[in-house]
Amino acid sequence: MAPSFSYRPAPLNTIRPGLPNSRHFPERPIDTEITPAFSTMTVDKANVLLIGCGGIGTIGALNLEVGGKAAVTAVLRSNYEMAQEKGFHIRSCDHGLVEGFRPSSILKSVPDVEKECLKPFNYIVCTTKNIPDVPPALAELIRPAVTPGHSVIVLAQNGLNIEKPLISAFPDNIVLSGVSFCGSHEVESGEILHEDYDEIFIGPFHNPNVEWSAQEAAAKHFVDIYGAGGKTKAHFTADVGFSRWRKLLYNACLNPICALTDLDTGRIQLCEAGANSLVRPAMEEIRSAAAACGFDLPAELVDFMLTLDPIQMYNPPSMQVDLRKGRFCEFENIVGEPLREGLKHGVPMPTLTVIYNMLRCVQWRMKEKKGLVEIPPHKDFTNTK
Amino acid sequence: MAPSFSYRPAPLNTIRPGLPNSRHFPERPIDTEITPAFSTMTVDKANVLLIGCGGIGTIGALNLEVGGKAAVTAVLRSNYEMAQEKGFHIRSCDHGLVEGFRPSSILKSVPDVEKECLKPFNYIVCTTKNIPDVPPALAELIRPAVTPGHSVIVLAQNGLNIEKPLISAFPDNIVLSGVSFCGSHEVESGEILHEDYDEIFIGPFHNPNVEWSAQEAAAKHFVDIYGAGGKTKAHFTADVGFSRWRKLLYNACLNPICALTDLDTGRIQLCEAGANSLVRPAMEEIRSAAAACGFDLPAELVDFMLTLDPIQMYNPPSMQVDLRKGRFCEFENIVGEPLREGLKHGVPMPTLTVIYNMLRCVQWRMKEKKGLVEIPPHKDFTNTK
Repeated sequence: MAPSFSYRPAPLNTIRPGLPNSRHFPERPIDTEITPAFSTMTVDKANVLLIGCGGIGTIGALNLEVGGKAAVTAVLRSNYEMAQEKGFHIRSCDHGLVEGFRPSSILKSVPDVEKECLKPFNYIVCTTKNIPDVPPALAELIRPAVTPGHSVIVLAQNGLNIEKPLISAFPDNIVLSGVSFCGSHEVESGEILHEDYDEIFIGPFHNPNVEWSAQEAAAKHFVDIYGAGGKTKAHFTADVGFSRWRKLLYNACLNPICALTDLDTGRIQLCEAGANSLVRPAMEEIRSAAAACGFDLPAELVDFMLTLDPIQMYNPPSMQVDLRKGRFCEFENIVGEPLREGLKHGVPMPTLTVIYNMLRCVQWRMKEKKGLVEIPPHKDFTNTK
Repeated sequence: MAPSFSYRPAPLNTIRPGLPNSRHFPERPIDTEITPAFSTMTVDKANVLLIGCGGIGTIGALNLEVGGKAAVTAVLRSNYEMAQEKGFHIRSCDHGLVEGFRPSSILKSVPDVEKECLKPFNYIVCTTKNIPDVPPALAELIRPAVTPGHSVIVLAQNGLNIEKPLISAFPDNIVLSGVSFCGSHEVESGEILHEDYDEIFIGPFHNPNVEWSAQEAAAKHFVDIYGAGGKTKAHFTADVGFSRWRKLLYNACLNPICALTDLDTGRIQLCEAGANSLVRPAMEEIRSAAAACGFDLPAELVDFMLTLDPIQMYNPPSMQVDLRKGRFCEFENIVGEPLREGLKHGVPMPTLTVIYNMLRCVQWRMKEKKGLVEIPPHKDFTNTK
């Protein structure tokens, strides 16, 4: 099925006034030379499987489809029927108003490539949440779709050490890191509100079993097909660690603090106790932990990240949305791993220690609500029965 | 109006099995010699004004009335009509089932003793929350009812330094401290659920303008009238600071951690991250701060306080109830003051620093909801309008 949808482009000036042109300032120098890799794919469209078509995944699918260099098979769960019937309704700062968007193909579950005799996937793009403390593990989820030694796995997910279980499960496959600040969420089933434009940094996680040149070529090719539509900026980066630590300033600090206090990124800037007594100290702890791990995050990034979302957007970051919706929270890779890395190097991280343990409590509560934790029954202590 | 209500006593053994006889173990030696003070009052009933008739206040009024040595005038707000019509319905671990309870007199607002030519109050018992960051201040609220140099003000409220504004507003009045662990809340208007029995420690805050012997006599007299019904244990303590710091182990630690994670005191014991990674470190910080201020809280108090509420009671402490009900949270005196005292003495308090700042954020959110904080309007950033 070819993708078909009505597309009303955004006004030319989609860059918000007062914001730097790159969301990734100050980023390391960008390698702009894109050498086409996987030359057979440039003739045929790349065969892309996309897991998770929520706010971020749908914008990813749209970017890949509008570029014309990829055909996306999306695996949907709760919104499958809706997407079948009428497609996605998207209001996007990058794409304008898009109605009835459907990827080339949609599925209800991860396909089994071998059993179903499908054409192997060139890329398997994972945009789902990464919640290692709640099964199933991502590697097991995607296993039936992965062709060993062939499919490139793209982790458009946050946090540290997320590649480790994937490389361990698929030792001969390339695993790429995708880091963007794309602010987009599904306000209701099929309704996508994309307010913070997409700019993505892509590079290989180092898989010691695969030639580096192949990993680099795969990353550059994915940059090419992802950015081909011209609606988003896709960059190659050889320094995945830097871009991941850099994003943790936002994600390990602003994100959970907004979630735990239920103040969005606008209100947390307006509330002195939030911005100055919680977010800044947490960000300085991430800077120290990053430095101990060999990544020098410039001091001015703290202010940059704190004010990245304009106040009047009143943007609830992902963890806040998850808690409000009674969903599990993705915090082990985003807060737990950087905390463990920092502590391992002797960095004091008192603010993030408390935040991490509060997230564990909140997750425990969610697990209890969903029946994953059993507790003894309530007793009456009033002596009146 | 004489108090009238049906009273079905609790079974004889109201002490829960497995719990120590005193909720205040290990407490300092109790001064059991009660010398009657204010001898005129032992003939007439003490004229008591009680401010705040919620969960704690209603049990206080009941204790005073059943002892027969006090006539209580209660100031009610939201539950005034209900109390007028049918009185309080109380299920109590100390008193059993009590139906249609009304104090001797009920009022809608704090009376003006001088203007209304009322008999001066011997005691003004304050059981309202103490929220210095949200006006009106308690001293201003009770001012019309206070007869200078006569009325004894009893602060049955938590935290540190709460007496300072009162002594400053009424320099010639005695101010008493009342510390109890009475676990009682109003589940709906007029419905009191009293699950954690009342045992109160009463002693004078030191007012340098009043003779110590008079302060001591007032405290001992109040102990006598409060405990006269035999349903509650009331003790005199000369060491108000110790009993207040001691209770902070529960109130500055368990209480806000339960509120912020929305796990009650049962669940927080079951959740390892709650009990061991948050509550215990916070309690050790309070112990260190108390020690720096001259109060030696024994190490075993940490376990005692953590397990004070039986798990299967699943008791939501006061701050958790307030947040759930969308009310302001009483945290400046309970968390802010001990934190400031500790930091002033150079005690590191990283856990409580984060907890305190989170509470400030949550209070800011509540203030915004109630219109006490104004924020700039929301803007649409999707470029689709």
